[in-house]
Amino acid sequence: MSADPLSQTFAALSDPTRRAILARLCTGEATVTELAEPFDMSLPAVSKHLKVLERAGLVARGREAQWRPCRLEAGPLKDATDWLERYRQFWEQSLDRLENYLKQLQSQNPKGDGNGRKS
Amino acid sequence: MSADPLSQTFAALSDPTRRAILARLCTGEATVTELAEPFDMSLPAVSKHLKVLERAGLVARGREAQWRPCRLEAGPLKDATDWLERYRQFWEQSLDRLENYLKQLQSQNPKGDGNGRKS
Repeated sequence: MSADPLSQTFAALSDPTRRAILARLCTGEATVTELAEPFDMSLPAVSKHLKVLERAGLVARGREAQWRPCRLEAGPLKDATDWLERYRQFWEQSLDRLENYLKQLQSQNPKGDGNGRKS
Repeated sequence: MSADPLSQTFAALSDPTRRAILARLCTGEATVTELAEPFDMSLPAVSKHLKVLERAGLVARGREAQWRPCRLEAGPLKDATDWLERYRQFWEQSLDRLENYLKQLQSQNPKGDGNGRKS
């Protein structure tokens, strides 16, 4: 795989276990054994996910042969956010359109609460 | 595939052609033929990428049988950004640490430019 860095970052984030591992590492360094505990997964399965995160530069590991604690490397997450930020205006426009539509509905039916619930 | 929405979004973004398609759709709706032009790709190859984007809810297509223009749906990009924003403090900390380190180097060697270049 010679994917570009941004593709590697997004691919690494496309799995809920890998996102949970990153969330766990926000609280501090952890060994593979510690990371495996909450997930009810085998060590090899967790190691496989860690390798994907390491290749994407999202996790770095210590050099101590026995422990090799994992820590979060947040740099690639910044690059991913920078890419996504360019689209902010588009989702804000969508939300504005939705808000205008709801206001329009409300002005057409000023006494109704618009969702059929009874209070 | 029954991946969760966030995993589907990140997986859809993990390809440079798909990201380029989204960038193109920022400028307005486009047909598959129009989308294929700048990529020098076959229509089936572009269609395959579009299907991934559609499944992730990032692209919607018109109903007209012949044209079916594609348009950007930015909602899932907001959810992805919201997830990434939780990590902002970590990359900001890394940048602060780097800045402090560089300041420290500079104070130890106030006359040098720190990188060995000759001016």
